[in-house]
Amino acid sequence: MTGFVSFVSSGPGDPELLTVKAARLLGQADAVLYDDLSAGDLLALARPEADLVSVGKRAGRPSPKQDHVSRLLVDYAKTGQHIVRLKSGDSGVFGRLEEEILALAEAGIPFEIIPGVTAASSAAAAAQIPLTRRLTARRVQFITAADVTGGLPEGLNWAALADPDCTTVIYMGRRTFPALAARLMAEGLPADTPALLAEAVSQPGQKIERFTVQTLAKTLEGSGPGQPTVIIYGPLMEVPPSA
Amino acid sequence: MTGFVSFVSSGPGDPELLTVKAARLLGQADAVLYDDLSAGDLLALARPEADLVSVGKRAGRPSPKQDHVSRLLVDYAKTGQHIVRLKSGDSGVFGRLEEEILALAEAGIPFEIIPGVTAASSAAAAAQIPLTRRLTARRVQFITAADVTGGLPEGLNWAALADPDCTTVIYMGRRTFPALAARLMAEGLPADTPALLAEAVSQPGQKIERFTVQTLAKTLEGSGPGQPTVIIYGPLMEVPPSA
Repeated sequence: MTGFVSFVSSGPGDPELLTVKAARLLGQADAVLYDDLSAGDLLALARPEADLVSVGKRAGRPSPKQDHVSRLLVDYAKTGQHIVRLKSGDSGVFGRLEEEILALAEAGIPFEIIPGVTAASSAAAAAQIPLTRRLTARRVQFITAADVTGGLPEGLNWAALADPDCTTVIYMGRRTFPALAARLMAEGLPADTPALLAEAVSQPGQKIERFTVQTLAKTLEGSGPGQPTVIIYGPLMEVPPSA
Repeated sequence: MTGFVSFVSSGPGDPELLTVKAARLLGQADAVLYDDLSAGDLLALARPEADLVSVGKRAGRPSPKQDHVSRLLVDYAKTGQHIVRLKSGDSGVFGRLEEEILALAEAGIPFEIIPGVTAASSAAAAAQIPLTRRLTARRVQFITAADVTGGLPEGLNWAALADPDCTTVIYMGRRTFPALAARLMAEGLPADTPALLAEAVSQPGQKIERFTVQTLAKTLEGSGPGQPTVIIYGPLMEVPPSA
């Protein structure tokens, strides 16, 4: 018996921001493997008989080893079931999808990927601004600003990141933003570049605040893990007063 | 009377890749203003009594003036109705959202933005690969490679675009890719960098093909507008043979 795995992107957390397809697959699966990050209300869409299996990842805490997650996924799929592997945001963006795909491929288990709304898009929408602007932000880039040790990753492309004509979105960047911002300003990014802190987007406790790169760095100095956070900086649109 | 506008992101075209919220709003709106790009099967979700209004944008053809679209949107909203302004992909990514937001704000008309699945995510999912990779593609960037004249836009950041450690996604880049690729290779991007051509993602006629930057440039030499196209290049994951 060979099972089948649907990698299902959950979007930012609000069940209404699942795709129709994601909601349907969640309601059909024999088992749902989820990160704690992406769970909550979404699991209510699973069948009452479905196995709900936490693989335990949380923001700002040590994660279970990725190969443990992959092994669990393969083991469930080998029982011949239809597995939904639920991943927050869009599974293809900082979702550690590759490791799980390779484990399935090695075990000969077929899969599909259902794309979803990535955190950059949901944060910008919540802030009522676009990610790109016709003349001033014709490029948008996403990075994650924490490596396995929680520090700034090596090998960042500073010419790309300090570009004042690009919207940059940082995933999981809360703790390292002060260090990142210091380097960006040293590389020539103006200190008063607009910045936006988006926490718990689409969830109870959603909070969207505007800063500059410099004032946001100061605000986040010494901050703990906090809520799931997206930081956006660049030539951000001003929200018109009447909006 | 003041209406209300929901900017609704449609995703790549498959009605199942709408968010649940987008599908609900489409089913409630008094009027739906849509680009030809994002229409098709999605309009079947509107109420039979809803006004369906094409604003006429198509890939590779001269677009109606953006201010005409904005005026139309304001005029409809002023009748006090609930308007869905349907935009393909994620409305915040190369969706000309800013101009329409400003027009609404000037007229005092409130709005909301519903994020969606952007073309980069849906193309990568269709190709069964992630957009980011833990060690080799820790940055992902989106650009549009056509300005109003259809040529390569000015002011591109070549240090960012020729970075071999980044996944780059080009929206509307079919016709300019040969020129872009020539410059990227001159800037040091290896000619054998993997590249992917994704056409009509999630729609009948979907086609996903793999190339290198050099061979894709050759393939697209002199090509016409064709289907809606996304090009991805960078250190792309190889799809395992058994997948």
